[in-house]
Amino acid sequence: MKIQLALDRLSIEEAIEMGKKTQACVDILEVGTSLIKDYGLESLSRIRAAFPHKVILADLKTMDEGEYEFRAAFTHGADLATVMGAASIDTVKICYRVAEEYGRSVMIDLLETPKEKLEFLTCFPKAVFCLHTPKDSGIRELSQELKEFVHRYPQMRRLAVAGGIRLDDVPSLSAFPVEILVVGSAISQERDPEAAARRFWAAVGNEGVRHV
Amino acid sequence: MKIQLALDRLSIEEAIEMGKKTQACVDILEVGTSLIKDYGLESLSRIRAAFPHKVILADLKTMDEGEYEFRAAFTHGADLATVMGAASIDTVKICYRVAEEYGRSVMIDLLETPKEKLEFLTCFPKAVFCLHTPKDSGIRELSQELKEFVHRYPQMRRLAVAGGIRLDDVPSLSAFPVEILVVGSAISQERDPEAAARRFWAAVGNEGVRHV
Repeated sequence: MKIQLALDRLSIEEAIEMGKKTQACVDILEVGTSLIKDYGLESLSRIRAAFPHKVILADLKTMDEGEYEFRAAFTHGADLATVMGAASIDTVKICYRVAEEYGRSVMIDLLETPKEKLEFLTCFPKAVFCLHTPKDSGIRELSQELKEFVHRYPQMRRLAVAGGIRLDDVPSLSAFPVEILVVGSAISQERDPEAAARRFWAAVGNEGVRHV
Repeated sequence: MKIQLALDRLSIEEAIEMGKKTQACVDILEVGTSLIKDYGLESLSRIRAAFPHKVILADLKTMDEGEYEFRAAFTHGADLATVMGAASIDTVKICYRVAEEYGRSVMIDLLETPKEKLEFLTCFPKAVFCLHTPKDSGIRELSQELKEFVHRYPQMRRLAVAGGIRLDDVPSLSAFPVEILVVGSAISQERDPEAAARRFWAAVGNEGVRHV
């Protein structure tokens, strides 16, 4: 299971500092929606420049204008970008096509995606599907949701989970074939983010830390 | 019917110039999603500073983190901001509450909003509901959609329409109680945006142009 650290509600400088502190125990740095909406694509290109060898995801949460948004993200250095599963299927198709063209990846954020749309989304085999509990609602039934999802959509093989993930969620999530664990405040809001990242890193089964 | 000009896929300077050219025939300036994602909130504050007396909408297309995004938009000068109808009802509620707190308005973008969510959205009486044809799909059946919508949801009184609106759409749209007509490229991509804005201004029944 890879660790993706969501950089949100920080200045670009703070985000870079957070990335530097934690990068030994983080696989993917996420330029969060708040960074993109607060500072624009500059947040992405500056984080790309600060971490030339890191996998970087742009959390665009695209709802429309897929071609414009995805090209912008990839030309500014993203390796992955997010489109909403709740967007039109045409929008998801366009994002997927642009990602293929650039040799990059799409993460489809399943936040509030209606069931009937999920059926169509099975036709994007290379996409990463992110089961996402919204910050704005308090409900946390991730394990159960994941269980049902894996059973119902075995063809969606690349899975991520996001939304208020805490360290003590890791054991129950480890029972599922989750490729990416998206962690935000449980690392970035801790007094010692480096130590918090190291705990997640160990919890998902890594030994030691990486040389970066 | 008010005219809202969507400023998209422009630099901030170009957007300000476009606003200056067209403002006599435009009621609301929209800081488009592309401007916000390309340049961040600076796009909003600079357009606010350039047009201190104009109504300004921030097309945030909020899907989550309603409180953070709406506070940011209002503190940077927006009079209205958009949340997706496809977001969780909790997110829409939060955006509505923050707007009430600031004495500003919410536009709920109905792009890809499932029918079952529309039922819940009737509980936000002061919101503007935007029927929105996605750019990424080619289908245009706006009049029919509007007819059904007005019949089905009479309690949603404040209506906007968006998505590739052209001048020759105006007569058919005028048959409905549409408060805001969102126009993008049919003004901004014209060789003479000022003249294009003036044609829309006249088409919705205004006489002369305003002194700004």
